[in-house]
Amino acid sequence: MASEGAGAVGPPLGEMDLDEFRRAGHRIVDWIADYRAHPECYPVLSRCRPGEVRAQLPRAAPSEAESIECILNDFERLILPGITHWNHPAFFAYFAITGSGPGILGELLASALNVNAMLWRTSPAATELEECVLDWLREMLGLPADFKGVIADCASTASLLAIAAARDAVAPEIRARGMAGCDGMPKLRLYTSEQAHSSIEKGAMILGIGQENVRKIETDARFRMMPSALVQAIRGDIADGWRPFCVVATVGTTSTTSIDPVAEIAPICRDFGLWLHVDGAYGGMAAIVPEMRHVLDGCQGADSIVINPHKWLFTPLDCSALYVRDPDALQRSFSLVPEYLKSREEDVTNYMDWGPWLGRRFRALKLWMVIRHFGHEGLAARIRRHIELAQDLVQRIDADPDIEALAPAPFSTVCFRFRPSTLKALSGDARRRQACDEYLDRLNEAVLDAVNASGEAFLSHTRIRGRYAVRMAIGNINSDRAEVDRAWRLLRDEASRLDGEMRQEWRSAARIS
Amino acid sequence: MASEGAGAVGPPLGEMDLDEFRRAGHRIVDWIADYRAHPECYPVLSRCRPGEVRAQLPRAAPSEAESIECILNDFERLILPGITHWNHPAFFAYFAITGSGPGILGELLASALNVNAMLWRTSPAATELEECVLDWLREMLGLPADFKGVIADCASTASLLAIAAARDAVAPEIRARGMAGCDGMPKLRLYTSEQAHSSIEKGAMILGIGQENVRKIETDARFRMMPSALVQAIRGDIADGWRPFCVVATVGTTSTTSIDPVAEIAPICRDFGLWLHVDGAYGGMAAIVPEMRHVLDGCQGADSIVINPHKWLFTPLDCSALYVRDPDALQRSFSLVPEYLKSREEDVTNYMDWGPWLGRRFRALKLWMVIRHFGHEGLAARIRRHIELAQDLVQRIDADPDIEALAPAPFSTVCFRFRPSTLKALSGDARRRQACDEYLDRLNEAVLDAVNASGEAFLSHTRIRGRYAVRMAIGNINSDRAEVDRAWRLLRDEASRLDGEMRQEWRSAARIS
Repeated sequence: MASEGAGAVGPPLGEMDLDEFRRAGHRIVDWIADYRAHPECYPVLSRCRPGEVRAQLPRAAPSEAESIECILNDFERLILPGITHWNHPAFFAYFAITGSGPGILGELLASALNVNAMLWRTSPAATELEECVLDWLREMLGLPADFKGVIADCASTASLLAIAAARDAVAPEIRARGMAGCDGMPKLRLYTSEQAHSSIEKGAMILGIGQENVRKIETDARFRMMPSALVQAIRGDIADGWRPFCVVATVGTTSTTSIDPVAEIAPICRDFGLWLHVDGAYGGMAAIVPEMRHVLDGCQGADSIVINPHKWLFTPLDCSALYVRDPDALQRSFSLVPEYLKSREEDVTNYMDWGPWLGRRFRALKLWMVIRHFGHEGLAARIRRHIELAQDLVQRIDADPDIEALAPAPFSTVCFRFRPSTLKALSGDARRRQACDEYLDRLNEAVLDAVNASGEAFLSHTRIRGRYAVRMAIGNINSDRAEVDRAWRLLRDEASRLDGEMRQEWRSAARIS
Repeated sequence: MASEGAGAVGPPLGEMDLDEFRRAGHRIVDWIADYRAHPECYPVLSRCRPGEVRAQLPRAAPSEAESIECILNDFERLILPGITHWNHPAFFAYFAITGSGPGILGELLASALNVNAMLWRTSPAATELEECVLDWLREMLGLPADFKGVIADCASTASLLAIAAARDAVAPEIRARGMAGCDGMPKLRLYTSEQAHSSIEKGAMILGIGQENVRKIETDARFRMMPSALVQAIRGDIADGWRPFCVVATVGTTSTTSIDPVAEIAPICRDFGLWLHVDGAYGGMAAIVPEMRHVLDGCQGADSIVINPHKWLFTPLDCSALYVRDPDALQRSFSLVPEYLKSREEDVTNYMDWGPWLGRRFRALKLWMVIRHFGHEGLAARIRRHIELAQDLVQRIDADPDIEALAPAPFSTVCFRFRPSTLKALSGDARRRQACDEYLDRLNEAVLDAVNASGEAFLSHTRIRGRYAVRMAIGNINSDRAEVDRAWRLLRDEASRLDGEMRQEWRSAARIS
């Protein structure tokens, strides 16, 4: 037996000094509290120009250690000006989100523990808390008990997993043999609405289904998938030799937040033997509000559904809850256990078998802290408030002759455009209507740019039936009446000012008298 | 114009009280500092039984708010006993990792900002810092400047992206038309060694390539892919009508940490026009140590390479760096920009175009803080120390007649088994050899279980050429001589004790005199 101590190994080299950690940690906690107390100090949308942050950073890593104080000073000096403040209560772009206090503290604890939640044994509490909080959430949403949950990073990933399970359920030989070059491989088709999120198409591209095999079903006047058109598309494809395998319905589409009629779509999927996945990443969460539970009507019949706590449950990025009715189907697509990851515990969940990941953060911790700190009623009250604020905005829009709602607003997101009433007189023949619409596109884009440049609010846009729409999404925990009113005033003021500036020039250019 | 204020919206509902946040934040920071000062208070591997954590948690979410103090008390009382302590300096399982102080503080700041790094404009600093720190890391690794980086959650995802780009580079029609049912779709084949990580096969399953179309190339006595066998497999497949498209080489395989001869594999890929992806998730990071830079020899000729800061650069989960030579190839597979995500800035990186994700955390911040706080030299010194500790262990094993090294140890991971010298006399004919090997498998498994049950160290296993191997991975920032020595003593003591207990019973059962 060799003597221990052979081979000298030099002086100790360890972790950062713990007193330094403590001091820096306290400083950061205080900084965060101050930052959140006074968001008005910052423009919502960063004013940086491309390359401006990068130009101030050294071209190479420092060769020697730097103090944490120096790094934190640089954070405030160099990084902060390049931040778009997603936590600002006047952030109304995309889907507004929140990293709330209990969620931030949960992330802090999770990163200190730094466990990998890949196997049950690599931290039993990480796996069992994930099962537990996803059951809590499922029950708050009113979903049946036979849905089992797993946390993914984002809804794009969650939907990709669901589509993969759907693909392999209909053609199990894909796992071993792949999709190309096998005799008799079915030509798969997936159905979703023309309003569905781009991640559904992207998932199909990644999985080898192909973008063209995502059939985009027509929507009605309220931007909801038309079940009759779905049936027609499925029947037509079957007649042409295609193999339909999956329908993705959406509860709260990204553009207009429309709600597909899942209760009508589910029986169609059952009849044709298709996997039904529901993308409720944003809108699904509204179901924790008792009077909004109807938005998930029909989802009891789905095979999978994704709903994002990081979107509308005040949980910091990233946290996306995927529920599946048959976890075995997910595992048939994703489980592959090499010897070095085998463990002997029975009747436990090893979440590495549920997806493509191996490195998995302990995301359940922050979600647990958020749900407990606000409680079901507190969470529902905050979501209810967002919906009320949006509905109030809808009323103002409907009463305003200079503004036009471009879509119904069933949740907390409102799509509209400024259409000065003095312009309506111009909308006579088709050429004039077209010219007017083009003017309104330019006007509304200019309004949005002006508001975003002010730094006082940040909104984003979409196009609805081809027309440019301003899109106001209310979802930050601190967004209340005052912030909505301020942004609304700003929008209207900019619209008046810009219409005044742009109208004459456009008339001359468009030769409209 | 409707009057503002129509529609009363009730009392204010916002974020958690900021003073409460401050108090809880300080308490958690202090708890983390204490936790890290005294890891010996905790068993490394959790002693929980399946279901034990879950049984103590309520079956439903609380309907009303709870204080953060109460939640933190429950964290210590209910969650902590179910944690396997990845940050314990006696964690030697899988690949040992570290969430170091500056990394934890970086996560804290990132979760407070809660920006989504999907588009440049959604936080210019998040995108530009990601480009910057990945350039720093690339330079520290000695990789050429034409590699561009992006952060993924884990190496499984990063390798999946690389294989998708490789697939679509050879058959661009897959994006639109998919892989099934198209005339002339090539029958794709991918090559990796029989020692490659399971994520490569899993990626091929997800991407519709199929598990059987991952050809596992034979390895040499040192577990390295044999270039001659690779060429033979490629030639044979081409002759049989397959279309080779990608080779995945590994720098630091998971089982034995062997290093494929990338410098010999790269020219083969060039000759046959194949995408070369290098999985350097663990071992690649050693290249930041100047005298270890050779481990990436030949990677200059790769198309993509993944190296994980969350594995061996003291960065909390999750942070995996994927470098690609041609970002356009990645974007041809993954870019899909709907109207509501369009932005007009030119010459900027929008990382949503580089992968399947949309919700993307600001992971560059923690990596920036880790690199700056330790500096290149400090990071290299810590990795060098891990390697020295492992090499010292190799010397002890080589000098010990009762222990057998089962693979070379080029990094900081050592695979071995106890083989009592008194047993060697038994290894005569084939039947006896087989019986001995089976005994050694059982003995070593029992040793591992006993050590892990002690709570004083946690190691995991692998199988090497069919035989059970104890695998000691040194990678935590606080693992030093003392922890390695203690674990080593424990292993040897348990081996002696268990051999004493098990040998006689085995002899009788195996009918060996």
